[in-house]
Amino acid sequence: MINQHFLSMLGNKNVIRELSEYATARGQEIGYENVFDFSLGNPSVPAPDSYRDVSIRLLQEVEPLKLHGYNPTLGDPRVKGKVAASLKARFGLPYEPGHIFPTAGAAGAIAHALRCVVCPGEEVIVFAPYFSEYNPYIEGTGGKIRFVPIKMDDFQPNFEAAEEIFNEKTAAVLINSPNNPSGVVYPEETLQKLADLLTRKSAEVGHTIFLISDEPYREIVFDGKKQAYPAKYYPHTLTCYSFSKSLSLPGERIGYVAVNPACEQADKMVPMMGQISRGLGHNCPSSLPMLASAYCLEDTSDLSVYETNMNLLYDTFTELGFTVPRPGGTFYIMPKALEEDAVAFCKKALKYDLVFVPGDGFCAPGFFRVAYCLDTEKVKRSLPSIRRFVETEYPDR
Amino acid sequence: MINQHFLSMLGNKNVIRELSEYATARGQEIGYENVFDFSLGNPSVPAPDSYRDVSIRLLQEVEPLKLHGYNPTLGDPRVKGKVAASLKARFGLPYEPGHIFPTAGAAGAIAHALRCVVCPGEEVIVFAPYFSEYNPYIEGTGGKIRFVPIKMDDFQPNFEAAEEIFNEKTAAVLINSPNNPSGVVYPEETLQKLADLLTRKSAEVGHTIFLISDEPYREIVFDGKKQAYPAKYYPHTLTCYSFSKSLSLPGERIGYVAVNPACEQADKMVPMMGQISRGLGHNCPSSLPMLASAYCLEDTSDLSVYETNMNLLYDTFTELGFTVPRPGGTFYIMPKALEEDAVAFCKKALKYDLVFVPGDGFCAPGFFRVAYCLDTEKVKRSLPSIRRFVETEYPDR
Repeated sequence: MINQHFLSMLGNKNVIRELSEYATARGQEIGYENVFDFSLGNPSVPAPDSYRDVSIRLLQEVEPLKLHGYNPTLGDPRVKGKVAASLKARFGLPYEPGHIFPTAGAAGAIAHALRCVVCPGEEVIVFAPYFSEYNPYIEGTGGKIRFVPIKMDDFQPNFEAAEEIFNEKTAAVLINSPNNPSGVVYPEETLQKLADLLTRKSAEVGHTIFLISDEPYREIVFDGKKQAYPAKYYPHTLTCYSFSKSLSLPGERIGYVAVNPACEQADKMVPMMGQISRGLGHNCPSSLPMLASAYCLEDTSDLSVYETNMNLLYDTFTELGFTVPRPGGTFYIMPKALEEDAVAFCKKALKYDLVFVPGDGFCAPGFFRVAYCLDTEKVKRSLPSIRRFVETEYPDR
Repeated sequence: MINQHFLSMLGNKNVIRELSEYATARGQEIGYENVFDFSLGNPSVPAPDSYRDVSIRLLQEVEPLKLHGYNPTLGDPRVKGKVAASLKARFGLPYEPGHIFPTAGAAGAIAHALRCVVCPGEEVIVFAPYFSEYNPYIEGTGGKIRFVPIKMDDFQPNFEAAEEIFNEKTAAVLINSPNNPSGVVYPEETLQKLADLLTRKSAEVGHTIFLISDEPYREIVFDGKKQAYPAKYYPHTLTCYSFSKSLSLPGERIGYVAVNPACEQADKMVPMMGQISRGLGHNCPSSLPMLASAYCLEDTSDLSVYETNMNLLYDTFTELGFTVPRPGGTFYIMPKALEEDAVAFCKKALKYDLVFVPGDGFCAPGFFRVAYCLDTEKVKRSLPSIRRFVETEYPDR
């Protein structure tokens, strides 16, 4: 018999995918340029030229057996060295190559980091709103997800509600700032408060609670600010990164885990990930894209378009009377729907060829996510439709 | 606390890795050209030029957002289409794109295929000798490995011994032909006999027993022959493939699962793999290497060197009085050691700068594996050392 667990998962409808498929079908009807598809978090600005140039140069100049050969189990030493040096220079933590484990994107990074610190039956705490894929990631370890309810006014961690979620089974806390789906950035004070909480709770439960920090949007921060680096505030931190957003390479599946050198058993973590990889069937990310990414560590795509788009949408939503925390980064914004049922709200929006995602899947019922990784021109063209949708459907708002 | 299970795995010594590290260290002492390192199964002939050319062309001509963008959960439709068409043309089974799931190499393929058909607590049968990484692959599913003892004379499946290994818990049989570590190829008759056995045992235990066929060496077959295609003989077959050996791209981690269209629930398998991938953190292999590989489906590296090397070694080993089944493919040969303890035998060989791997890890105690993916010139230079080793250490053999 085939595996009934995975078979039963086929029944679960993926709302984002369904909406995106609707958008594609509708695009074929009326022209894709007329469908305002805010459903998918797919970068809209191309990879920097440097990425293409270094890839071609590697293909032309490096001996194929070396370029495409097996990597050591714990990853290409050149890549590990470059990543460690870059993180050290940027954030001041004494990373060495042995603290870096190259992975297939942030998904691979989280899959390995979680398995290092979570045993079957233990719990991982996440703060709502959170990226829906955290559910299968955590379930895959045999652990259980525990979520802290949303803090409605600003989407910062709800520390008050968190107090009672911690218990002896708590193995780790998984955070994501800049945040998908809300666009909110955790400032220094939040990270310090979180570190204090984790230190206190670790003492209470009698074991170290680890912090897993998922940071694919680290480089997409607005208003000239920078994302404070979570591992600086709490030693027992595994930082999970992906080049998907900073270099616009989501299909290449390139990322890494960086283990804070001050973390408990820091020197064991990366070798453990090598062992974990064997059972998962990963065995290092693809050589060429990984090496090319490591040559582009200080580059990014032109990310400024996301801030331009955010401002256009934030201004329109606030002007139309929406409650909406202003994003500090990413390419998402998450306003409160104009009726309690965000699914109904998003369905009505479809009539105006606006594709939004209800917040329910992000543990944020009543809200909706708008992914504005689109050409600015298209975002501008969407504004009258948003206005028309709201004024027609919710005249008494 | 960190995960004790994976932590404890760090204690397990990896014999192949230790030998390979010894060889590297010794190479630094006496020059790497003087160490005959037969330990690693790493291709020794470069990727075909076509792979480099198509990669560069894709980088130059395809819009970066398209080239490096997210793939659909179930894989790039162009890749799926090309693979399905190629398999259909070569082997006559009516594959459609929906039967193909692109993966990170054969390791990723096996990880997904196993999870489709194995539930925790169930058993997977393998025939000794077998690739040692099958242990963590199977353990990672929550299933249990059951091995059928080696058939000493020819390393073909030991059907007689297999009879009593099957039971109600048997979920699948995992085969590998051409075989790592023995180089042996299962002919048509063997595959037919295996299919008959699986059909009979499925009826006996009351459920379909699946066949997982691991075929990374499919294109490396000697004497002008071809590997018979296992899925042709048994409908419930998931074929796992990798381009690591045929295109010499082991570091790029590109492969696929092909579900026989006649397999039980064939249409559910690939969608299930999409769900499985979420928990494993795979999410499709890297876009560029996957797409470039799909453009090179009918190409291979110059694989003839492996046959040349095999003949040189086979002739030498037989002349020296070794018992050794002649490989039909791969780049491995597995003679019987000249003393009972193959580990002791391989240690003695090190004195002659010959790095062989004891068969113990492959469930073949008393044998040793010789990986001849080396320049032919180096293989030729190794022959006098092999002769000297044997004549000095085993004068009365």
